[in-house]
Amino acid sequence: MHQDVARLVVSCDDRPGIVAGVSGFLFSRGANILASEQYSSDPPSGQFYLRVEFQLEGIAESRTAFEAAFAGEVADPLQLQWRLTCASDRKRCAVLVSRYDHCLVDLFWRARHGDIDADLALVVSNHDDLRDEVERLGVTYHHVPVTRATKPEAEAAMLAVLEGVDFVVLARYMQILSGRFLERLGVPVINIHHSFLPAFPGADPYGRARERGVKIIGATAHYVTEELDAGPIIEQDVARATHSVDACGLERIGRDIERTVLARAVAWHAEDRVFVDGSRTVVFES
Amino acid sequence: MHQDVARLVVSCDDRPGIVAGVSGFLFSRGANILASEQYSSDPPSGQFYLRVEFQLEGIAESRTAFEAAFAGEVADPLQLQWRLTCASDRKRCAVLVSRYDHCLVDLFWRARHGDIDADLALVVSNHDDLRDEVERLGVTYHHVPVTRATKPEAEAAMLAVLEGVDFVVLARYMQILSGRFLERLGVPVINIHHSFLPAFPGADPYGRARERGVKIIGATAHYVTEELDAGPIIEQDVARATHSVDACGLERIGRDIERTVLARAVAWHAEDRVFVDGSRTVVFES
Amino acid sequence: MHQDVARLVVSCDDRPGIVAGVSGFLFSRGANILASEQYSSDPPSGQFYLRVEFQLEGIAESRTAFEAAFAGEVADPLQLQWRLTCASDRKRCAVLVSRYDHCLVDLFWRARHGDIDADLALVVSNHDDLRDEVERLGVTYHHVPVTRATKPEAEAAMLAVLEGVDFVVLARYMQILSGRFLERLGVPVINIHHSFLPAFPGADPYGRARERGVKIIGATAHYVTEELDAGPIIEQDVARATHSVDACGLERIGRDIERTVLARAVAWHAEDRVFVDGSRTVVFES
Amino acid sequence: MHQDVARLVVSCDDRPGIVAGVSGFLFSRGANILASEQYSSDPPSGQFYLRVEFQLEGIAESRTAFEAAFAGEVADPLQLQWRLTCASDRKRCAVLVSRYDHCLVDLFWRARHGDIDADLALVVSNHDDLRDEVERLGVTYHHVPVTRATKPEAEAAMLAVLEGVDFVVLARYMQILSGRFLERLGVPVINIHHSFLPAFPGADPYGRARERGVKIIGATAHYVTEELDAGPIIEQDVARATHSVDACGLERIGRDIERTVLARAVAWHAEDRVFVDGSRTVVFES
Repeated sequence: MHQDVARLVVSCDDRPGIVAGVSGFLFSRGANILASEQYSSDPPSGQFYLRVEFQLEGIAESRTAFEAAFAGEVADPLQLQWRLTCASDRKRCAVLVSRYDHCLVDLFWRARHGDIDADLALVVSNHDDLRDEVERLGVTYHHVPVTRATKPEAEAAMLAVLEGVDFVVLARYMQILSGRFLERLGVPVINIHHSFLPAFPGADPYGRARERGVKIIGATAHYVTEELDAGPIIEQDVARATHSVDACGLERIGRDIERTVLARAVAWHAEDRVFVDGSRTVVFES
Repeated sequence: MHQDVARLVVSCDDRPGIVAGVSGFLFSRGANILASEQYSSDPPSGQFYLRVEFQLEGIAESRTAFEAAFAGEVADPLQLQWRLTCASDRKRCAVLVSRYDHCLVDLFWRARHGDIDADLALVVSNHDDLRDEVERLGVTYHHVPVTRATKPEAEAAMLAVLEGVDFVVLARYMQILSGRFLERLGVPVINIHHSFLPAFPGADPYGRARERGVKIIGATAHYVTEELDAGPIIEQDVARATHSVDACGLERIGRDIERTVLARAVAWHAEDRVFVDGSRTVVFES
Repeated sequence: MHQDVARLVVSCDDRPGIVAGVSGFLFSRGANILASEQYSSDPPSGQFYLRVEFQLEGIAESRTAFEAAFAGEVADPLQLQWRLTCASDRKRCAVLVSRYDHCLVDLFWRARHGDIDADLALVVSNHDDLRDEVERLGVTYHHVPVTRATKPEAEAAMLAVLEGVDFVVLARYMQILSGRFLERLGVPVINIHHSFLPAFPGADPYGRARERGVKIIGATAHYVTEELDAGPIIEQDVARATHSVDACGLERIGRDIERTVLARAVAWHAEDRVFVDGSRTVVFES
Repeated sequence: MHQDVARLVVSCDDRPGIVAGVSGFLFSRGANILASEQYSSDPPSGQFYLRVEFQLEGIAESRTAFEAAFAGEVADPLQLQWRLTCASDRKRCAVLVSRYDHCLVDLFWRARHGDIDADLALVVSNHDDLRDEVERLGVTYHHVPVTRATKPEAEAAMLAVLEGVDFVVLARYMQILSGRFLERLGVPVINIHHSFLPAFPGADPYGRARERGVKIIGATAHYVTEELDAGPIIEQDVARATHSVDACGLERIGRDIERTVLARAVAWHAEDRVFVDGSRTVVFES
């Protein structure tokens, strides 16, 4: 299925000729376009985003030459920001978790069934509770406790074990990551927040939703930035909750939304379907 | 359909014997219970809410005697707060509107088709734009312009025309009503806010939703209190909006949610299905 | 949480005085009503359904006397069909499964987290694939292969291991159960069908949904009757699927709906929230 | 907004070079691509669908030359089926209706607010009930009664008044159109059916949904073919309906879904976003 499949993702200032240039290049190389999606934030200027999935015999082997040619013939003249990924190079992902297991269990279940096209390579937790669950799956479990006093050392320890991952997923990881940590980590971090952002950022969103009397609760997957729960949103979903649903019921309903929303965000990120466009994202959903 | 149908709504501190008392009384009078819903916010204490719809021959005529007996035999001993309404006494409602017509048009359409069991008796607007639309339906249209300088006089003029209504609906009325106005008005006011509260209270929610990059937009119908967009929520709903939906598209999608959410809230209020429970509502949906 | 909590479920021909009788009896015994829901299919005649959850000190011990008194004072005079269950007596449930694991894994995960208030006591499968997954949870796994030729013996073997269960869940069990089996089993059987019934009963619903070009797919949990996929529906849900979702994608999206719909149906059945009303169900949702 | 905007829609057997050819041609002419969507039903073979919206100064005037050049340089060599439409050439649409007004009222309201980019030019009905409603909007109303005996003459009369329309919308038109009528009409006909097809085709879907006990009801907009309710589906949506919703309530809930689903289908068709792909449709949603 992955054989000879690659993805070209482009983001740049919009200008005439990008699609003609890219598609002309692919045609000239004999590539078959499998899927192509594009978006202009404000045509004819604004930002332009393009994702092309194509099949080309031997692309994994000929990749370097292909990239050099594409840069010279298309990307440099048109000043494109671009990236080529071969579908066979699955992204390496670390999952951070605290004590709730629903997102973690669900992510691994989906990865095993091929719904998430990434390698969930390791788990890091500030608790030791889920070790058995994770190790049973043949995945390495790193227990890195965090206290206010030991946070710098803990983050350093985490950076060490996260070395080499392509992205990080916070599957209900209840510690705030410092700006310095994020900067040194240097790869995207996806968080699941258990509210419909921007409503109820921060602590105890279900309790506050109950207090406010909302009739619908939600969950939000977003890229993590230094500002808490304020990063670009990748995906959201909601469920109804009548007056008779108590805080415990909200958590129960919410778990289903959290795990689904996070799974979609992770799957899309893994397949290079998400572009950050300032404070927003452009998502070419599968 | 309304013939001989009445509704008994009860709210009080929860205590044993309320349902036994109420249902025993209704049985002793020969009433047929058509529907009954109850909710305890925190049994066995907390608040208790009950709505019983029943059929009793001649209830409209014998109402006073029925009420006196109920008070003496059930309500006073059990310290109930209660109210009886005959279904044939439809509530009189005023609709306030500015320039957007979608909620107004929809409410009148639904009322005409029997989906909203209230008498939409008059319209008040700070603009004159929708006069023809409203008068064509045989409904009185009051144009009461409001400026910062004339707000007190305008609110006084509105109070005069609103005399005698049972509740008021703000169908995209873009002026803030003063606390003094609400107090003197003395009847419930239902507002539709074009966001998923508590996200984006106040001005331009669609613009801010677009700016924040949310993937779902919403609308909220709530009772108006002095604090802007902070009153008890009656109903909410949402719709998906991808990155490619611009501000104009959000408004278009939002209109459908706004009118539906407002219509549900108005219909439920008209049928005594909504109880205010502190900052929340208890809604016995139809 | 279960301590001293019991549920009284009543179904009968509608007639005056049922609620008065039941609530009067409960009040006289000192029971606190925690929740109460009722429905009349066609008041004042039609069928009447009532579910009352109440707290009464020592109900588990005094149950026999309570039942005798209720029968004599209320149920027999009013000709009620009724049943009392103590919340501490959790229902014993068997899960039947073939090869797909998503519903099975999800049900056990929810049961472990308290979302399904039943004892998932054993698993029966016509394949041996999921043995490890199930035994790891400390649950007995019975492998009962079925071929066309051995179906009678297989059903007999299944009846033997299912002895004593309160209900059976078909969590993507791909064999059709004979009418004779269902009759001898004598307890409710809940099935999950991977379509929005009555659309696409029988085999390969996702393939047929794709072929027909529907824009939304669904799943249905229903009680099993002798007629395939025609029993009373307990719960349904749906998800959007654009033209670009292939058969494999439909299965992936469908899995999420299937497991959620089945879990809700099982949880509601376990808490005595579902009544069969001819070809329909009455569900007092939690 | 329409100024200088045109749409190129292409459908053909998939083959390499189509996107390169089309985008190269548009670039060479100085067109700015505003939006572009494509779909391959089974790459690299299968059917290919492309919709490109672009801005090109003076396209309305230079259209003939543009089309000739495109045919010669791109379409003929690549054997494309294609069509160019200028956004300023709004499609002319006739609405057929019987007695229910909800879809009709809603379509005209949306067209007036710019949500449907078509000219709803005339209404034809087998009843005279909605004449005032329609004529008030300045739209011609044709009353063409139909009985079993007069059906051929009625269809002939309808063909006469429908002369020159680009498509027809059945907004709850309760007569079946003959195959001969459809053939002679020769333009697309969009119907709204008040069920979630393929469930409940034909008469009285709400009554049958109630009888079957479904927990969700729906509506379907589809292209009309000679076989009743079996044409390619354009859009569907659903709403929950509990056991307590009677047939009248299903109709009330259903009206909201019907009008929304039909409006989306009509808006998409008007903007050339819908392609028929055998028994399915490919829809590039706005």
